[in-house]
Amino acid sequence: MQLPKRVKMVEVGPRDGLQNEAQVVPAEIKIGLIDRLSRTGLAAIEGGSFVSPKWMPQMADTAEVMRGIRRQPGVCYPVLVPNLRGLKRAIEVGVEEVAVFGAASETFSRKNINCSIAESLDRFGEVCEEARKHGLRVRGYVSCTLGCPYEGDVDPANVAWVAGRMMELGCYEISLGDTIGVGTPGKAQTMIEAVAGKVQIERLAVHFHDTYGQALANILAALQMGVSVVDSSVAGLGGCNYAPGASGNVASEDLLYMLKGLGIETGVDLNALVEAGRYICAALGRPSGSRVAKALESSGDPATTRH
Amino acid sequence: MQLPKRVKMVEVGPRDGLQNEAQVVPAEIKIGLIDRLSRTGLAAIEGGSFVSPKWMPQMADTAEVMRGIRRQPGVCYPVLVPNLRGLKRAIEVGVEEVAVFGAASETFSRKNINCSIAESLDRFGEVCEEARKHGLRVRGYVSCTLGCPYEGDVDPANVAWVAGRMMELGCYEISLGDTIGVGTPGKAQTMIEAVAGKVQIERLAVHFHDTYGQALANILAALQMGVSVVDSSVAGLGGCNYAPGASGNVASEDLLYMLKGLGIETGVDLNALVEAGRYICAALGRPSGSRVAKALESSGDPATTRH
Repeated sequence: MQLPKRVKMVEVGPRDGLQNEAQVVPAEIKIGLIDRLSRTGLAAIEGGSFVSPKWMPQMADTAEVMRGIRRQPGVCYPVLVPNLRGLKRAIEVGVEEVAVFGAASETFSRKNINCSIAESLDRFGEVCEEARKHGLRVRGYVSCTLGCPYEGDVDPANVAWVAGRMMELGCYEISLGDTIGVGTPGKAQTMIEAVAGKVQIERLAVHFHDTYGQALANILAALQMGVSVVDSSVAGLGGCNYAPGASGNVASEDLLYMLKGLGIETGVDLNALVEAGRYICAALGRPSGSRVAKALESSGDPATTRH
Repeated sequence: MQLPKRVKMVEVGPRDGLQNEAQVVPAEIKIGLIDRLSRTGLAAIEGGSFVSPKWMPQMADTAEVMRGIRRQPGVCYPVLVPNLRGLKRAIEVGVEEVAVFGAASETFSRKNINCSIAESLDRFGEVCEEARKHGLRVRGYVSCTLGCPYEGDVDPANVAWVAGRMMELGCYEISLGDTIGVGTPGKAQTMIEAVAGKVQIERLAVHFHDTYGQALANILAALQMGVSVVDSSVAGLGGCNYAPGASGNVASEDLLYMLKGLGIETGVDLNALVEAGRYICAALGRPSGSRVAKALESSGDPATTRH
């Protein structure tokens, strides 16, 4: 199997995870989570999102969180910004990196960020230009790369076009999101192949949700294409908004377990990651969405599954 | 991606699934489950196990179940038999196929079936010979092909040796079990490659547990090697014995979703399968272990996962 030697894991639990949890999490808990994640060896941990609190009350305290965390050397704490106002707030708390978020589906773009894809690209251009002046990197998210809740199938050519435009505007990396988790491995490869025609594979990340249980298989397929940056969420945070037990982001612990098994370097410590997941699950009073975390919790009695 | 055109799904929920559930399930519920599975298009549904009820009380009613189900033409209902006595009982209820179960780990063999690997092979030889006289096919299970709860890592050469011997004794197919779900895709391929040196790839099935969330990724890796028979369990039955929410067999619904997405024919209807899963989960009073089933249950509100 052709695979990258090293994979960079981008931890999105404190942002994409918590923003999709039913309950609003106090800033001190978010800080506790990020500080624990900072000690796992992760090189990138999303800190929050400077969107309107009206749209996303769960992220209203991002400035407080960003000021409260103990930033570790070598760890990057990107935040999401929808526009120049968000960027200004990000600069005020001091960040190295921001992320803009677009979609490959016109309807999703309008419903999620309230503007057309073309309009969103104009905004991203402004953000990228201003970010560059302040020496900040900009990461670009593309949602609905493998399906849209409103439009169904999404043409890989659309994904490639949006991703390509975001790179031209100044993003250094594009994270390809399967926002509703409907993708399967072949479709993931077809989509990545299309995007790789516009954006170097080294600049691509995958951001797969596990709603239909396909995330790890899709990630494996992406790794086989040469993708070496993968987003994930500790304890599978983010899956509880619409159904108890339904899954959101792929769990970081499960991803790391697979990468370790494949002999791929990440620099991340599994025990420390499981510990961080245990902390946030205890705070939220919910079971972990990570199968690895659950299996490790119940180990000591490994022989009960029998033929 | 190189993949088989068609995959045969072997449904093990009524046997491997239910035998690992905490509660003993009444025969009428098992019959209800198997009859629903019979209408999904599945070609193979394990009916039960003729082991000692002392060892496996959940399977004590297998004869009653096998007599109660409405067998559909074109569907095979194999049962597990540990020895000649079990085979005799299987023949009494009328089956086309039985399965014998061995292990690639010496310690697991002794703990699970109470004899050494060599002794188990002697028994399998007797069963195969007697089965042949009655015109029955014999399937061979090998447990612990990717790890053992007692011995840890398992040498792929051991797996290949046991699998090869079982074929020589008269098995028509070997199902390679990751009994404790610790495998990852590269290790799965290495193991399958070793076994394929002894047994034609067309004669191999994979039987992967999702304890660490790796099952679908491992199955994808196996399909890429040319494996075209996959065991799975409706609703992910079988995971509740040792930890609430921990996973047992890979869920049939999640497997089918992936195979459909990959364009691989199975002949199985997803809605009918989900329906069968709903039936048994309602009867057991437990949530489904299938992410597809959960996602479909909560659909109608697909847009709540947002950036």
